[in-house]
Amino acid sequence: MEKKITLTGITTTGTPHLGNYVGAIRPAVISSHSANQKSFFFLADYHALIKNKDKNLIYKSTTEIAASWLALGLNTDNAIFYRQSDIPEIAELTWILNCVTSKGLMNRSHAYKSTVQTNIEGNEDADFGVTMGLFSYPVLMAADILLFKANTVPVGRDQIQHVEMARDIAQRFNHLYGQVFQLPEVKINQNVDTLVGLDGRKMSKSYNNIIPIFASEKQLKKNINKIKTNLLEPGQPKDPDDSLVFQFWKAFAHQPKIDEMRDKFQNGISWGEAKKELFVLINNELAEPRDRYNELMSDPEKIESYLIEGASKAREISLPFIKEIREAVGINTLQKIKS
Amino acid sequence: MEKKITLTGITTTGTPHLGNYVGAIRPAVISSHSANQKSFFFLADYHALIKNKDKNLIYKSTTEIAASWLALGLNTDNAIFYRQSDIPEIAELTWILNCVTSKGLMNRSHAYKSTVQTNIEGNEDADFGVTMGLFSYPVLMAADILLFKANTVPVGRDQIQHVEMARDIAQRFNHLYGQVFQLPEVKINQNVDTLVGLDGRKMSKSYNNIIPIFASEKQLKKNINKIKTNLLEPGQPKDPDDSLVFQFWKAFAHQPKIDEMRDKFQNGISWGEAKKELFVLINNELAEPRDRYNELMSDPEKIESYLIEGASKAREISLPFIKEIREAVGINTLQKIKS
Repeated sequence: MEKKITLTGITTTGTPHLGNYVGAIRPAVISSHSANQKSFFFLADYHALIKNKDKNLIYKSTTEIAASWLALGLNTDNAIFYRQSDIPEIAELTWILNCVTSKGLMNRSHAYKSTVQTNIEGNEDADFGVTMGLFSYPVLMAADILLFKANTVPVGRDQIQHVEMARDIAQRFNHLYGQVFQLPEVKINQNVDTLVGLDGRKMSKSYNNIIPIFASEKQLKKNINKIKTNLLEPGQPKDPDDSLVFQFWKAFAHQPKIDEMRDKFQNGISWGEAKKELFVLINNELAEPRDRYNELMSDPEKIESYLIEGASKAREISLPFIKEIREAVGINTLQKIKS
Repeated sequence: MEKKITLTGITTTGTPHLGNYVGAIRPAVISSHSANQKSFFFLADYHALIKNKDKNLIYKSTTEIAASWLALGLNTDNAIFYRQSDIPEIAELTWILNCVTSKGLMNRSHAYKSTVQTNIEGNEDADFGVTMGLFSYPVLMAADILLFKANTVPVGRDQIQHVEMARDIAQRFNHLYGQVFQLPEVKINQNVDTLVGLDGRKMSKSYNNIIPIFASEKQLKKNINKIKTNLLEPGQPKDPDDSLVFQFWKAFAHQPKIDEMRDKFQNGISWGEAKKELFVLINNELAEPRDRYNELMSDPEKIESYLIEGASKAREISLPFIKEIREAVGINTLQKIKS
């Protein structure tokens, strides 16, 4: 049986936090070690350009995120880890797909429609602040997916429609030009948002409630101490299922340890003690990766070497496939004649 | 003084006819021999994909048009002649420009607005039949122009707005990221539509009034015999300025010969005789190129070799420039670190 191909894009904005770690990175790292699966992970820097016009921030974020995934143990021998902008075939395919994608499909994108709605409510022009990047972003995402013949695309709920659009576009292309593209399936990532922020809301930089994955030990301890608790005193029994501290615990502990802590909660462990144990638990998981992360961040060429290797593996697939695609539509037959 | 850079896109649809020859190809061929000018000519096959979904037709048309330009004497030592889809940097730049192009700018495109108008009048959805290729085509055209730092872009009147949009997009980019792009200037091509069709309307395949450049001698004669005339008999004076035959004559003859024919008209040359002379005139200009054309068409590898050479010259410019552009926006710093 052929291996199933899974493809995941990683947004290169912001500093990766524990919510990203538990929701996306950790499960991806685990799957990267599975021999039954062929996984593609890419740093979506073309996507980042849509929202972010600060070149230094784009560079910094891409580097930090690459270093994070590598430090956390992504198996780059088995999985293919690359930067989107290192694969020129993605941009080329985006144009080719543009030519078979109806504008009406983009008009129906939830993300676009909600921007238009906000603009209209604010008495702005419907397309105020909408760039062609934002508007045609689902076509780029279709190219990301279709170029590597992904069978499944694990996404959060807000991205389901985009994968469906990639299917639509692939079907339209196949209808016009023959069976060229694999139709991708959505897979809802159930892990996303497992971990909430320090204040119980979704962990997000905009709420200022995040814990960066690679904060220093001291900073990690400080952050954990900020997790919201109630006013119950040491000795008073505490409800683990109504506690953010316990939620964090569950995200990092194995079952026996979860049960143990549940007992301790019922036996009135103090918040201070619980947080101390939580710090040890999380820090144990992150201490080694943190060292690797700091090492990588001090050696950007090393990070680049991983990305260059990943790009070269990815292009072993994308280069012959784009030739097939070009041939299917009748452009650039150079390679055909040469071979 | 630095040489001015001129860039011209060649639509790769249909069979090239005498209208294309007189209006576009002949002046371009002349300018390709001028040492004072750096000219870029490209086969716009990414553009062709927007309207044409027949792969064989796209391939055939691209090959015929390449062979025509080469056979008609384009100086590929001085001018750079390439196929758009051989330059991956064009598609990449298109995406990057998408991210700085407001959707509102595309909404205001005349071509798009007229399609919407037609749809609405026909009680269709406003975007009926509009693909993302059609809608975002001005961004692709901006990438074509900006990637080669063109100073002037000779276009017909219907394309003026697109060059202005390329300027707008370049200005927006430069505003956000610093002086990266040269702002292009429109140059109205006055030669376009110099030659009308057999029936006096614009020469166009859709009017069935064209003369293919490389029809056989026999076919050329036949076509010329079809040029519409009035009913004046041999011997009766004829008004050259009210004659299609004379219009064709003017497009191919030098001044003394034009004056000569003017006299003959006033002296009552017969239509048959005038057409015979016209055939000889045009055929003299096209006979040699026709042989070269047929030779090239029987040797597609030869055509490819010209295009490969052109692409390689074009990429000597586009590859280092796209690196600069990537660096300006903060993506793919691989090259930066490597160098």
